[in-house]
Amino acid sequence: MHEVKSIFEPRSTVLIGSSKIKEKVGMTSPQLFKSVTYNMRKFFRGKTYVVDVDGEAGHKSVSKLKEIPELAVIMLPPEHSLEAVEKCAEKGVKAIIAITGGYKNHQRKQLLKIKEKYDVRILGPNTIMGVINTANGLNTTFEKNVMPKKGNIAVISQSGGVGACLLDWACFYKIGISKFVFVGDKVDVDDVDLLRYFGKDKQTKVVCLYMEGIKKGRQFIEEAQKIVKKKPILALKGGITREAALRAKSHTASIAGSDEIFDAAFKKAGIIRVENIEELMDAAIALSKQPPMRGDNVAIVSNVGGPAILAADAVAKNMLRLATLSENTKRKIERLFPGVDATNPIDMIADARAERYEKVLDLVLADKNVNGVLVINMLKSTFFEPKDAEVIPKIAKKHPDKPVVDVPAGGEDFALVYQVLGKTNIPLYNLPEKAVKALKVLRIYGKIIEKR
Amino acid sequence: MHEVKSIFEPRSTVLIGSSKIKEKVGMTSPQLFKSVTYNMRKFFRGKTYVVDVDGEAGHKSVSKLKEIPELAVIMLPPEHSLEAVEKCAEKGVKAIIAITGGYKNHQRKQLLKIKEKYDVRILGPNTIMGVINTANGLNTTFEKNVMPKKGNIAVISQSGGVGACLLDWACFYKIGISKFVFVGDKVDVDDVDLLRYFGKDKQTKVVCLYMEGIKKGRQFIEEAQKIVKKKPILALKGGITREAALRAKSHTASIAGSDEIFDAAFKKAGIIRVENIEELMDAAIALSKQPPMRGDNVAIVSNVGGPAILAADAVAKNMLRLATLSENTKRKIERLFPGVDATNPIDMIADARAERYEKVLDLVLADKNVNGVLVINMLKSTFFEPKDAEVIPKIAKKHPDKPVVDVPAGGEDFALVYQVLGKTNIPLYNLPEKAVKALKVLRIYGKIIEKR
Repeated sequence: MHEVKSIFEPRSTVLIGSSKIKEKVGMTSPQLFKSVTYNMRKFFRGKTYVVDVDGEAGHKSVSKLKEIPELAVIMLPPEHSLEAVEKCAEKGVKAIIAITGGYKNHQRKQLLKIKEKYDVRILGPNTIMGVINTANGLNTTFEKNVMPKKGNIAVISQSGGVGACLLDWACFYKIGISKFVFVGDKVDVDDVDLLRYFGKDKQTKVVCLYMEGIKKGRQFIEEAQKIVKKKPILALKGGITREAALRAKSHTASIAGSDEIFDAAFKKAGIIRVENIEELMDAAIALSKQPPMRGDNVAIVSNVGGPAILAADAVAKNMLRLATLSENTKRKIERLFPGVDATNPIDMIADARAERYEKVLDLVLADKNVNGVLVINMLKSTFFEPKDAEVIPKIAKKHPDKPVVDVPAGGEDFALVYQVLGKTNIPLYNLPEKAVKALKVLRIYGKIIEKR
Repeated sequence: MHEVKSIFEPRSTVLIGSSKIKEKVGMTSPQLFKSVTYNMRKFFRGKTYVVDVDGEAGHKSVSKLKEIPELAVIMLPPEHSLEAVEKCAEKGVKAIIAITGGYKNHQRKQLLKIKEKYDVRILGPNTIMGVINTANGLNTTFEKNVMPKKGNIAVISQSGGVGACLLDWACFYKIGISKFVFVGDKVDVDDVDLLRYFGKDKQTKVVCLYMEGIKKGRQFIEEAQKIVKKKPILALKGGITREAALRAKSHTASIAGSDEIFDAAFKKAGIIRVENIEELMDAAIALSKQPPMRGDNVAIVSNVGGPAILAADAVAKNMLRLATLSENTKRKIERLFPGVDATNPIDMIADARAERYEKVLDLVLADKNVNGVLVINMLKSTFFEPKDAEVIPKIAKKHPDKPVVDVPAGGEDFALVYQVLGKTNIPLYNLPEKAVKALKVLRIYGKIIEKR
């Protein structure tokens, strides 16, 4: 059996569409065909052939191409797609992405038959956006010129809409992505295949899943159990309520299953469950940039009082603990900076600049009672300047076994500090509560690794 | 007794500071004095005098001013402040904002004595940022040139840091503000005074509170009970855990009190409690723009499947219900738009444009089984264009008794639709879950009004 590798890392590709057919339900459209053509030609660093079945010039059939491409991307209505898939498979294409939707059950079965007959791998149908691989530039989405930043977070989305939202989020907030895959109806390639692939993929450090339903539950759990020893897996589950589950069924032809079953399965698999798209991305950023947390004790280092109090509240609400600093650490801080009360949460006072952050953060990270640090550096109502934040990654690097997250709380304050720290290994959050949730995920992953 | 009105609506003001004294703890500083001078002169539309007690030229004392200002803003260290406060009070100044902190207990008591002797109202000390009134331009904060957009949300913050974060958030996301007040140590003016004032303030439609502790609990509850009949009050409480509460005590000299007591008090008072700064602002926007929700039934109208499923999940998690559309509504929608399955959550399919949104939204809002609508209009992976969103406020206006919130889910998608709808009465959220929480708050406020 061919591996799903051909879907992400083909040497050559062919895009098969129509410049004439427009179909509402399945999203076959000349305009979308144009956009995918644009993206594949612009970004993909291998060879891309384009077949327009209704074109007046150029390629009208796969048979006439000089070489047999490794991957075919097909965006035609079901009947035409089935024909094209069979022709490609016959010719020796190794993998197929069936972009368009609107397949009936018997048509899905036909796809499966072709797959079995020719040993070709099929992603979809109804994947809508297909795949993105930032390493080789493969981009089969129809969002013209939308390409996320290279990084090490992989995203598997069962839904086109949720996937598109995650993609939009990743691009807008400049989150580093290794691969994106929209799975759609999963007639062939499924979560198990994709997990296995991402488990081995060198560009991927964290795997994010949006799922509505699951097939092959046991295999899924077993595969995840293997992977989480080395790479964390995050999951957002849609369709947890009865009504939503019914909608999910008509949406991606999947059986959503009861929420409790999923919760238990995720726990067994070592998969970390999150509650929404923002939490999924926030957690992925933390896991991709910082080490797991090896104990529950969080220190808070801040230049403002109130937000530090909110952070301390969030620590307790998220089943973490406020670290009790050693007397030695406290004494050192208070001697260095008279006026600062070094009881955790540490309020370093509004005039704290780079030097105070550097020294206090260093002392706190060196304290054996501390397992992770949440830094708050607001600009408004304080003397802090964005450039002062540079000391945070510098000191964090000295203590590579303890996670550090940063909160330049607010709107503009966040944006300004992001300009300084966005490309470093320090995850940034615009509110203390979000940073605490990120630390919680780092702690959960710490426990998952300890157990296995 | 003078009303706190003089703090927000003085005819004239005097700012008293020093161009020489620099004090770390209380934040007396020539630089901050300069910034406040800048803001008061630039924005305030009444007369502003500036007294520099260490200045080499110009006013060095309040006694020498031609007129007695109604409000004095004092940013000197405690000892000097006390002197200045007494002198101002003696001269007939009606209200004082004591910006700087670092007061000892006996100094706070002295302030209180002056207040009693001269019947002057004192905000602070340790208010750090003082007040903003977008109606007359009064702005005593030291964030140079930072002024929120005019609107009808009032913010009362006990913490300078949390208040500054809220201010930064409001400015960055262009949230309309009526007044901002940083209460600090509350020797005189307290939450009860401020609630009473905002209850009557014509510019204010929603009151937001960040509080750590409370004095005069019973009065606070009684005052709130009166106000919430006409204006909703939202509260974020800091210091709910023991450790955070201890820090809150040293931070603003308040007794944080047990979380359960606060929860019960908020409920009794009809105050809606939120969990973090973003939720506070999200809820305030909803309450300032949309009517309360008069029942639990939410309809979801979307151009993507997955995000609608996440919205449906959130509806159930937030103790709301997915509305069951009447057969009549469903039939009409399905007849108008073949291919659309009008079961709530309604997936209008990715090619839905303005016309489909307009007609479906109108039919859904007219359905008596529906109490509020959550609209999802993603751009990525769909045919929707930002300008199409203009039909949403248009149709919402036809049904003024039912709230409508909008979710252009994602990063760039949200920003693009915000450009079109940001100034309208439609609250926008970047994720379905946040919009559902906003509807939940509108529902809670609906219940509060029904009860009273």
